Amino acid sequence: MSENHPPAGADAPARSGGHPLDWLDANEKERVAAGLRRRVRPRPADEPGVLDLAGNDYLGLARHPRVLAASAAAVAAWGAGSTGSRLVTGSTDLHAELETELAAHSGAEASLVFSSGYLANIAAITSLVGRGDLVVSDAVNHASIVDACRLSRARVAVTPHCDVDAVAAVLADRAEERALVVVDAVFSVDGDLAPLAELAAVVRRYNAVLLVDEAHGLGVVGAGGRGAVHEAGLAYADDVLRTVTLSKSMGSQGGAVVGPQRVVDHLVDTARPFIFDTALAPVSAAAALESLRILREQPELADGVRRRALELAEGARALGLNATTPSGAVASVLVGEPDAAFAAAARCADAGVRVGCFRPPSVPDGISRLRLAARADLTDAEVARALDVLAKAV
Amino acid sequence: MSENHPPAGADAPARSGGHPLDWLDANEKERVAAGLRRRVRPRPADEPGVLDLAGNDYLGLARHPRVLAASAAAVAAWGAGSTGSRLVTGSTDLHAELETELAAHSGAEASLVFSSGYLANIAAITSLVGRGDLVVSDAVNHASIVDACRLSRARVAVTPHCDVDAVAAVLADRAEERALVVVDAVFSVDGDLAPLAELAAVVRRYNAVLLVDEAHGLGVVGAGGRGAVHEAGLAYADDVLRTVTLSKSMGSQGGAVVGPQRVVDHLVDTARPFIFDTALAPVSAAAALESLRILREQPELADGVRRRALELAEGARALGLNATTPSGAVASVLVGEPDAAFAAAARCADAGVRVGCFRPPSVPDGISRLRLAARADLTDAEVARALDVLAKAV
Repeated sequence: MSENHPPAGADAPARSGGHPLDWLDANEKERVAAGLRRRVRPRPADEPGVLDLAGNDYLGLARHPRVLAASAAAVAAWGAGSTGSRLVTGSTDLHAELETELAAHSGAEASLVFSSGYLANIAAITSLVGRGDLVVSDAVNHASIVDACRLSRARVAVTPHCDVDAVAAVLADRAEERALVVVDAVFSVDGDLAPLAELAAVVRRYNAVLLVDEAHGLGVVGAGGRGAVHEAGLAYADDVLRTVTLSKSMGSQGGAVVGPQRVVDHLVDTARPFIFDTALAPVSAAAALESLRILREQPELADGVRRRALELAEGARALGLNATTPSGAVASVLVGEPDAAFAAAARCADAGVRVGCFRPPSVPDGISRLRLAARADLTDAEVARALDVLAKAV
Repeated sequence: MSENHPPAGADAPARSGGHPLDWLDANEKERVAAGLRRRVRPRPADEPGVLDLAGNDYLGLARHPRVLAASAAAVAAWGAGSTGSRLVTGSTDLHAELETELAAHSGAEASLVFSSGYLANIAAITSLVGRGDLVVSDAVNHASIVDACRLSRARVAVTPHCDVDAVAAVLADRAEERALVVVDAVFSVDGDLAPLAELAAVVRRYNAVLLVDEAHGLGVVGAGGRGAVHEAGLAYADDVLRTVTLSKSMGSQGGAVVGPQRVVDHLVDTARPFIFDTALAPVSAAAALESLRILREQPELADGVRRRALELAEGARALGLNATTPSGAVASVLVGEPDAAFAAAARCADAGVRVGCFRPPSVPDGISRLRLAARADLTDAEVARALDVLAKAV
């Protein structure tokens, strides 16, 4: 498809120095030397014999026949795109139904759908704190939370991982009136759980608000996959809100903010990624809605994925590997250097088992890891095969 | 779907002051008084008799039979979601094909797809400038550019709208070595065109880089809808990059960065919204790809939408209204106070013509507007009907 245009700007004045993008090349050399060069590897639609433990389709719903049927029906009824932002033409009946059912499932007054979980975090955080406010963020929070905190212009206090006393100390010592504490429910790399009940008590004692990112909690943690906030007894709490993603256990795309009605109303009026972003495609809203309905009919799916994750972690430890204890769908195997982790992941892939490989800056402590994501529909034979391959690869 | 959970935290210690979210209510009252309360109005799948001039489906491709067929096929082949981030399991052959063809169409070495145009802007800007660098941003740039500039931590110089001399002065006076100039190709509110050739010359003279957001340019501006950068003779320029959205003329969802290969390679390695966001759903990649192919086969679609936009603007002026001169698909009719614009848009809607209503903070000068978005598939009768309704409503 290449086209032979002449290089543009041949008549432009000469540059005074080197090319203004030459620093990219030097930068790349450093990453190559550090083993941090990344490469996009597109996958085909069918991969016979491949066992996928890298994706986040935790409940195995992305290809569920009912989800595919709902998606196809949505394309036929609504077209390919939402055609506009949520406040112009982008809100459809599908978005409204999804928001109602997501709030009910989570135990909250309301919810608001975005085109990604990344933007849901930016919306929630930048709309609730600004200059002159305080936001307290766990050291291991997801990149989207880190970016949202920065963007908010609030003072950002980063507290040690899951350290409730540190959060209490920062809240107690603050000069700011408004404060927001932000934490992942289940941390994305190691799959460990935040101490939500304790955090909620601290937040309440110090008159702050708690935001919990349930990206890896929805559909996985707690009875029926209602998430870690619900499991901690915080459903309908009037000072707790949540963000979720629709692209993991819901097998689709997008994100949402879940919480008190007045917070959702405030986001509708003020959240820039709500006002200025094109709405989630109707087909993706439909897929998430159907996945949610399947989960509500089959609440045991959430137990299933957690059990499989534990089996993978316990199996890895039985092999002498250093594996985390999963609270959700994900277990990590600590390897060490980026190159070694990358090579181990490549050996797994060669043996037909796809695992995640997390290297800096995606790992909190610089230790590169293999990341094993369980699915509710894994079989005993698949778990055994995964462990067999892992034993040879690491 | 409501469920009767008791309010959470009944046993928690009492708060020392008022509720930490009570400020939301005071805030809302201010917006109500200022006529700035927004409301989500979900639309049904079928709206017989409604003429839509509010959506951004500029080429009328969101419901094109070929786009629907490609979407349905993608759902069947790939499932509902991409299942992971681009570097884990989220890159499919569809994403790769779309990136190749989008680069070829735009006249660029490479492109990189994101789940939204908002995130494409955040990725491009935060990856190219940081603390100690300079970013120069037009006063009327889109919110996603404004947010990306803030997030980059570079020094942000906001220059008056389309003022090339001001850009040159900021670049000439800078202490920073690296500088990026960011501008919308077609401004989203009034549909006017940035002086790209002049900006490119200034950027080159002062050894900076130019980033052009073609959200409203792709598919609309220039021969065959190749966009404003291509039209300005800047295809394949090695110091110009672009962001595009797939949710407007492409009728789908998502965004992309388009530019030199080394910039795309750099984004793959470093852009946080690339590394940490779930990839665009395959169905949305497929829809955008099919729309792009239709545009390349029918380059006259781009001329069609621009002609219809001019007809709407000229017709509005013939009615004595204050309408902008569109360079792309969008014409604005300036109204004034938010309440008056909102009421005029409501009267249009009552008469079956949906128009956009832009109020602060979506308008640069505080003047609320009706926004008319043309489509390539509008008929003469529809243009006449729109103008008839507009005459009675404003």
